[in-house]
Amino acid sequence: MKHPPIGRKKWAIPEGYIPTYSHTTGRDLISHDAICILNASDEEAHVEITIFFSDRDPVGPYRVIVPGRRTKHVRFNDLEDPEIIPKGVDYSSLIESNVEVVVQYTRLDSRQAENALMTTIAFACDN
Amino acid sequence: MKHPPIGRKKWAIPEGYIPTYSHTTGRDLISHDAICILNASDEEAHVEITIFFSDRDPVGPYRVIVPGRRTKHVRFNDLEDPEIIPKGVDYSSLIESNVEVVVQYTRLDSRQAENALMTTIAFACDN
Amino acid sequence: MKHPPIGRKKWAIPEGYIPTYSHTTGRDLISHDAICILNASDEEAHVEITIFFSDRDPVGPYRVIVPGRRTKHVRFNDLEDPEIIPKGVDYSSLIESNVEVVVQYTRLDSRQAENALMTTIAFACDN
Amino acid sequence: MKHPPIGRKKWAIPEGYIPTYSHTTGRDLISHDAICILNASDEEAHVEITIFFSDRDPVGPYRVIVPGRRTKHVRFNDLEDPEIIPKGVDYSSLIESNVEVVVQYTRLDSRQAENALMTTIAFACDN
Repeated sequence: MKHPPIGRKKWAIPEGYIPTYSHTTGRDLISHDAICILNASDEEAHVEITIFFSDRDPVGPYRVIVPGRRTKHVRFNDLEDPEIIPKGVDYSSLIESNVEVVVQYTRLDSRQAENALMTTIAFACDN
Repeated sequence: MKHPPIGRKKWAIPEGYIPTYSHTTGRDLISHDAICILNASDEEAHVEITIFFSDRDPVGPYRVIVPGRRTKHVRFNDLEDPEIIPKGVDYSSLIESNVEVVVQYTRLDSRQAENALMTTIAFACDN
Repeated sequence: MKHPPIGRKKWAIPEGYIPTYSHTTGRDLISHDAICILNASDEEAHVEITIFFSDRDPVGPYRVIVPGRRTKHVRFNDLEDPEIIPKGVDYSSLIESNVEVVVQYTRLDSRQAENALMTTIAFACDN
Repeated sequence: MKHPPIGRKKWAIPEGYIPTYSHTTGRDLISHDAICILNASDEEAHVEITIFFSDRDPVGPYRVIVPGRRTKHVRFNDLEDPEIIPKGVDYSSLIESNVEVVVQYTRLDSRQAENALMTTIAFACDN
């Protein structure tokens, strides 16, 4: 059985900010900004992420591969190539894929003893 | 009076993660990942949920019935057939229904003394 | 200058739950489930809210008027006619208006000392 | 290489409320209501924000410029012209731009020792 792709090829997330510190050091509860990418199709998805800043040119693409019929949760904290995203800085992201995927944005903020969470489906671009 | 269905037949939620522990044991405040399904139509909705992982094939379908003119809040924690969803693991979900429904995703994280909440309407698939 | 309506006439919110208690009694921080309605048009909006439950027939309509060029933040906690929405119970809501409006859902949960927040734009129905 | 605009020219956010106090004074953790605007195009975006209240006429436009290929995170707390937005008051916002942009809403509430977060992509108006 063939599984058709679901979603869109271009997604945007205006909000972006990696908190500068955490109250903990465990990977599960450390402050992070993340995207979750669902590739429901049979094809491998080649995803390119571009990061926009307030005061300098965009940086990217950051390349991520999501195998067919798989999900990938990517922390902006972990992106390194072409360069690490600085903490404590406002940014936005644009996610482009060769096959349709679905993208959701989540931040866990553990600057304080009790963590805070927020999430939203990214903006699905029309074209 | 007949009530027409509202929503879509296919929804996707890229984010998914059941925290591995809770600070409490009460059902209302235990850490959970959940979907809320509104079936505004008169017909019974037969809903199938497929779970996608990062490192193995999708699991499902998990079957849920939402009677006509009813809502159902389903915790991923409670899904058991065909298999329990492991805690502390990244996943995504695809929700398919025979009649149009509306789907929203919510997580309550009570790993710490003070709980955190996040929610978003799921991604409404185009077809 | 005439201001055209913005948004849709029908919105759905699958998630709904009024926490059964609060850690505080101040109105600003008491646990609540709410919708914010923006009526950007010049016309008065007559809004009807229907509440769906998991185990009984829907209740409504609850009637709310939003004057032209105004916003109204409505707490489900405050709805009384035709009946109070019980606390600690899962529900969904359907919001219908005679003129286009925009609807957003927000919950503040203050069952614990530190409050939690979540929000999402409601699902904009296609017809 | 020319970068086409992404998004829409008109966005609405029904929710709006600047908490009246904070548990901290640091800018990063002070209570705030904010919008993030992504301008992925090469053109400068001239953005106008109108604020709607529950009991008086809308105020605006507040003018914001987002250079091409840049993001701008704007706190409602910081808007001053034509007038400061009062704290502890319900409002909604309408964001209009001459070129397509993408808009996301975020609130950080630090009235208590542990902050709470919420976010959603704004409502993308159809026209």
